[in-house]
Amino acid sequence: MFKLLVLPGDGIGPEIVRETLRVVDWARNAGLRIELSEALAGGASIDAVGAPIAEDVVEQALASDAVLFGAVGGPKWDHLPRPQRPEMGILRLRQALDLYANLRPAVCFDELLDASALKPELIRGLDILIVREATAGVYFSLPRANEVGPDGQRRAYDTQAYTEAEIARVCRTAFELARTRQRRVCSVDKANVMETGALWRAVATEVAADYPDVELSHMYADNCAMQLVRRPDQFDVIVTDNLFGDILSDAAAALTGSLGLLPSASLSGLGQGGNSRGLYEPIHGSAPDIAGQGVANPIATILSFALCLRWSFDRADLADRLERAVRRVVSSGVRTPDIAHPGVAAVSTIEMTDAVLAALAAE
Amino acid sequence: MFKLLVLPGDGIGPEIVRETLRVVDWARNAGLRIELSEALAGGASIDAVGAPIAEDVVEQALASDAVLFGAVGGPKWDHLPRPQRPEMGILRLRQALDLYANLRPAVCFDELLDASALKPELIRGLDILIVREATAGVYFSLPRANEVGPDGQRRAYDTQAYTEAEIARVCRTAFELARTRQRRVCSVDKANVMETGALWRAVATEVAADYPDVELSHMYADNCAMQLVRRPDQFDVIVTDNLFGDILSDAAAALTGSLGLLPSASLSGLGQGGNSRGLYEPIHGSAPDIAGQGVANPIATILSFALCLRWSFDRADLADRLERAVRRVVSSGVRTPDIAHPGVAAVSTIEMTDAVLAALAAE
Ligand SMILES: CC(C)[C@H](C(=O)O)[C@@H](O)C(=O)O
Ligand SMILES: CC(C)[C@H](C(=O)O)[C@@H](O)C(=O)O
Repeated sequence: MFKLLVLPGDGIGPEIVRETLRVVDWARNAGLRIELSEALAGGASIDAVGAPIAEDVVEQALASDAVLFGAVGGPKWDHLPRPQRPEMGILRLRQALDLYANLRPAVCFDELLDASALKPELIRGLDILIVREATAGVYFSLPRANEVGPDGQRRAYDTQAYTEAEIARVCRTAFELARTRQRRVCSVDKANVMETGALWRAVATEVAADYPDVELSHMYADNCAMQLVRRPDQFDVIVTDNLFGDILSDAAAALTGSLGLLPSASLSGLGQGGNSRGLYEPIHGSAPDIAGQGVANPIATILSFALCLRWSFDRADLADRLERAVRRVVSSGVRTPDIAHPGVAAVSTIEMTDAVLAALAAE
Repeated sequence: MFKLLVLPGDGIGPEIVRETLRVVDWARNAGLRIELSEALAGGASIDAVGAPIAEDVVEQALASDAVLFGAVGGPKWDHLPRPQRPEMGILRLRQALDLYANLRPAVCFDELLDASALKPELIRGLDILIVREATAGVYFSLPRANEVGPDGQRRAYDTQAYTEAEIARVCRTAFELARTRQRRVCSVDKANVMETGALWRAVATEVAADYPDVELSHMYADNCAMQLVRRPDQFDVIVTDNLFGDILSDAAAALTGSLGLLPSASLSGLGQGGNSRGLYEPIHGSAPDIAGQGVANPIATILSFALCLRWSFDRADLADRLERAVRRVVSSGVRTPDIAHPGVAAVSTIEMTDAVLAALAAE
């Protein structure tokens, strides 16, 4: 019996999560025992209890095997100071659950090649996996402050700190994952400028010694941004720190043109045989502009659940089936408005999910 | 009489700077009085005096109106620890000369559209100016260290600090420059995660009050990386911190496909009437693989000198003429190997410069 905590969040979050729960039902019918619970996160939680996530929800997440997360945020909460904003809910969860490995696949759906800004020959079949450290670095290190100096001038500072253990464990995750792929890891840092970069590079090199079958290369973050644009297919797995990972994974996702379809997983390591604690969420946001209209694309959330099947529920078989079904649906031309060609009829959130379930049934 | 200090550096640096000096001669013949001096920087300086830049060269730079910088670095010096590496020469100069505004134009030469990874319709005529803060932030803030803790574990940390004055002055530069362009500034930060980001956003907003004719927008750095790929033409001027500027300016330059042609300027503000102290350098590196062969493309360095004419030597007229001449040469199909179509005959570094000088003479 696996425990799955569902946090629909704000904007289109509730709609896409609701449909994904129909796919969860499919997995249950396929023999997986899942105990579901639901709670508030983001703006919805701010409105109800005054914080982007309640401590008892964090406790609930800690007692779960996995969390399915929709999306959070919206104009209603934009004026709030940073610590009270919807996004803090997700940061709190990453840290409380020790979800140090944030997996961000940048995969191109060839059917959507047209939607990419890049020339098709550069991104056809693209499949990059970015492994981003997600519980340390500048996101969480202390001291940090925004203060007024003795001269009356405002001054702010942040700290980016990393220990060798924090770097080593996320690098191990990257190397393990590379073994299931093309066995190439590119470690990204600013070792030429930052102390944490120099340590990052040293530790990545040390970890590599345990993976002689995996090729390690190093790249500076600025050059990586450039290379992602110029020749994205040179990458297999990229491992990098929290801040670089945030920026580079968004750049990589944008390359694919499949932005609205991309899932992500935040894991506490790879665990034993697909039993990691994980948080799963689409990489897109809460899209308040289309919320409540029933037109949001549920695929990124459905594929996030596929990652949950693979990494937390030890059911790679079901994950494979679900991913294949989604591919078939996209290939068959079923399109929500975000991925529809202008002038072509689009389906609703519910109809897209119907199509995925039908493809699963037809297998 | 203007003083120009020339620092050719390593790799192709000496070749491209040597040719650019012929263009400096053209400017002298056009009536500009320039006193030239030359010194070592980067690996060449490490070999000669044991440091990436000698303190008396820094003094010389401080006594100059402008510095023309080639490129530094190469495999010979890659094993050195960070503080002794060639790149430290340029960081030292940025800080010693207070070159807080690093201008990085990402301009598409439409003749080279083919070379871009992006679809031509997305980048034709692209003209983005990134204004990167370059003397503070994580590059220079203290404390920073790489140390072994009491538990025997290595730990590294960096600090990113900004004062309101440091943010305000580079924002002013961005707004002033926007007035010479489309009057739109996008300020980029991670205000949702970083203290320095929150201060950055607040100060940018305050500075904007003095520029009611310029439109200010804010964007998170991750989203900016994404938007640069998806719809680069939405940007006019981008202003951001040292680290984000490093990464985003490389991504933006890569979009254009004109990487080998792009110049940059590092200014101590905009000064009065084009009399800023500045350092001018191509954005490309020292390309040790092709050094000494006479095939390097001098255009990025020549265009860097055009920026020098504009911002340090108060001769926008000569800068315009030089930029037009370069455009005509590129349009006429003269190509060094880096920008030549496969199979098409390419010219040498010297011949490319000959072509630029001929175009200037033919005006
Ligand atoms: C919402 C925000 C705090 C978050 C981050 O910066 O990590 C987001 O951009 C992400 O990448 O998950
Ligand atoms: C060489 C390096 C220190 C430098 C930087 O990171 O600023 C370079 O990448 C640049 O952008 O000028």
